[in-house]
Amino acid sequence: MPAPVVGIDLGGTKLFGALVDPDRTGADAVLADARAATPTGGVDAVLDAVEAMVRSLHPEPTAVGIGAPGAVEPATGRVLVAPNLAGFEAPVPLGDLLRARLGCEVAVGNDVNVAALGEVRAGAAVGHTDVLAVWMGTGLGAGLVLDGRLRSGPHGLAGELGHAIAVPGGRRCGCGGEGHVEAYIGRRALEVEARRRHAAGERTSLVELAGERPMKSKVFRTAYDAGDPVARQLVDEGIDVLALAVVNVAVTVDVGAVVIGGGLGERFSPMAGERIADAFRRLGHAGVEPVVLDASLGDHAGALGAAWLVEDTR
Amino acid sequence: MPAPVVGIDLGGTKLFGALVDPDRTGADAVLADARAATPTGGVDAVLDAVEAMVRSLHPEPTAVGIGAPGAVEPATGRVLVAPNLAGFEAPVPLGDLLRARLGCEVAVGNDVNVAALGEVRAGAAVGHTDVLAVWMGTGLGAGLVLDGRLRSGPHGLAGELGHAIAVPGGRRCGCGGEGHVEAYIGRRALEVEARRRHAAGERTSLVELAGERPMKSKVFRTAYDAGDPVARQLVDEGIDVLALAVVNVAVTVDVGAVVIGGGLGERFSPMAGERIADAFRRLGHAGVEPVVLDASLGDHAGALGAAWLVEDTR
Repeated sequence: MPAPVVGIDLGGTKLFGALVDPDRTGADAVLADARAATPTGGVDAVLDAVEAMVRSLHPEPTAVGIGAPGAVEPATGRVLVAPNLAGFEAPVPLGDLLRARLGCEVAVGNDVNVAALGEVRAGAAVGHTDVLAVWMGTGLGAGLVLDGRLRSGPHGLAGELGHAIAVPGGRRCGCGGEGHVEAYIGRRALEVEARRRHAAGERTSLVELAGERPMKSKVFRTAYDAGDPVARQLVDEGIDVLALAVVNVAVTVDVGAVVIGGGLGERFSPMAGERIADAFRRLGHAGVEPVVLDASLGDHAGALGAAWLVEDTR
Repeated sequence: MPAPVVGIDLGGTKLFGALVDPDRTGADAVLADARAATPTGGVDAVLDAVEAMVRSLHPEPTAVGIGAPGAVEPATGRVLVAPNLAGFEAPVPLGDLLRARLGCEVAVGNDVNVAALGEVRAGAAVGHTDVLAVWMGTGLGAGLVLDGRLRSGPHGLAGELGHAIAVPGGRRCGCGGEGHVEAYIGRRALEVEARRRHAAGERTSLVELAGERPMKSKVFRTAYDAGDPVARQLVDEGIDVLALAVVNVAVTVDVGAVVIGGGLGERFSPMAGERIADAFRRLGHAGVEPVVLDASLGDHAGALGAAWLVEDTR
């Protein structure tokens, strides 16, 4: 039996871990899992928590993969910036620091990218080698697996579909760019636009349903189902923007499957999947449309994918 | 010294060949080249001409790569359909037929894709491992080289940027689709639109300059420079459409270089390159914009790339 590998998903609020047999695929490959709150005390506190979770899953792992919520330098495993992680506002050599603590091979990747790998090796897209995974969450993230391997790219940018341009000169994105996909379908961007319209006098139940708290995916779904005009307009437009962006990347790169996940993705499935499938049909490449699948691993996709990242980056 | 490899670009009107040392890169790698007219007498006539050109370049090649102007089945080397090649209206097992004749390894790829590989191994993009090459010719073709290898994809579709959707519900493409990139920047599509506008009474010198013959790239450039309103409008719009499509794919896949070639590309360089570079700057991923380069191999890109296709598909 090959030595099992530990995968860790280092999120802004939660830490997920998994012990994986990388020679298997599907649910059989997952030998154990764990979750904990992410410490807010800085880099050392985060490293302590990661080390403890790794050792709880296996006393002497041969390899550890980790997904981080930010930009990761492909060659070195340095986390350049992870704004949602206390102590990671400046570059952190996460790979080197964990190698020194754990004494084993460590691979570091972007959390959204490794989640795509998780769905391919153990989730919805098992059996596919060429996959675009799209996470409709707080923002709009994506990951590409091509020829069975996670695509990183020379700048570690691969999968930045949320910051592709959907509408030239269009709505301002959280990153400062104009008309990016995320400005139309990220949950946070939808909330900003909904509150702006409400303040400008448009009728909508979205602000009432959310109150002062973040406008969750569930709120958008409830208002959408009740026929709220702003919810209908924003979500319909956003999903159309996403469908076009997905189709254009998928046809140019050529993938066999598209996986849809994330909080908004779950709430608006199967509608989002159907619109994307419909956009492929309208594109006119008969017989080569990828299948559109719902993500199946939920919060565990990142930890599982991180475990496979190790052999993927060898 | 390793055995040299022959590359053949099987075009609708011309056949290009090259003898290449695949262990070198750049101009040094090209040991000899050849060109001939493509026979119009059917599959056997084409095979005779290809075999003769291969043997003229090397009496006993160890491997031959060939680029064909149509859809190629990745695993088998079958040319599914190549409408511009007499006898190739139905699928032709080009790889098998040439292996039987030549008694050596044969790799078959799409002509536009292999031309991208040529520019990476011996042309403008030497030194880059991740490249999007765009050919602005009769149609709009493209090829992707990722991690140093030509991307084909599970359906052999990779690089079909010309049939991505630029304008939902927009101008009809030659393939029947709506609003495809090629409908805005392929030379043939521009000609159809220019003649339609002329027939509808719009003032343009394009039809006068071209007469009954195909409206060449040079005609578009001449009219554009003279301030012809239709030429200005069509070309400006087309290049903007292309720039957006290129930026969106390049940022999602993450490439280090974009190569621009083809007849229209040459005529509208450096303008096309500048607009694409400008679109990257406006995208807002500072520091990770790919360089935009003019293709440098001209008509030889396909034959050279085909030679490298052999080791690329091993």
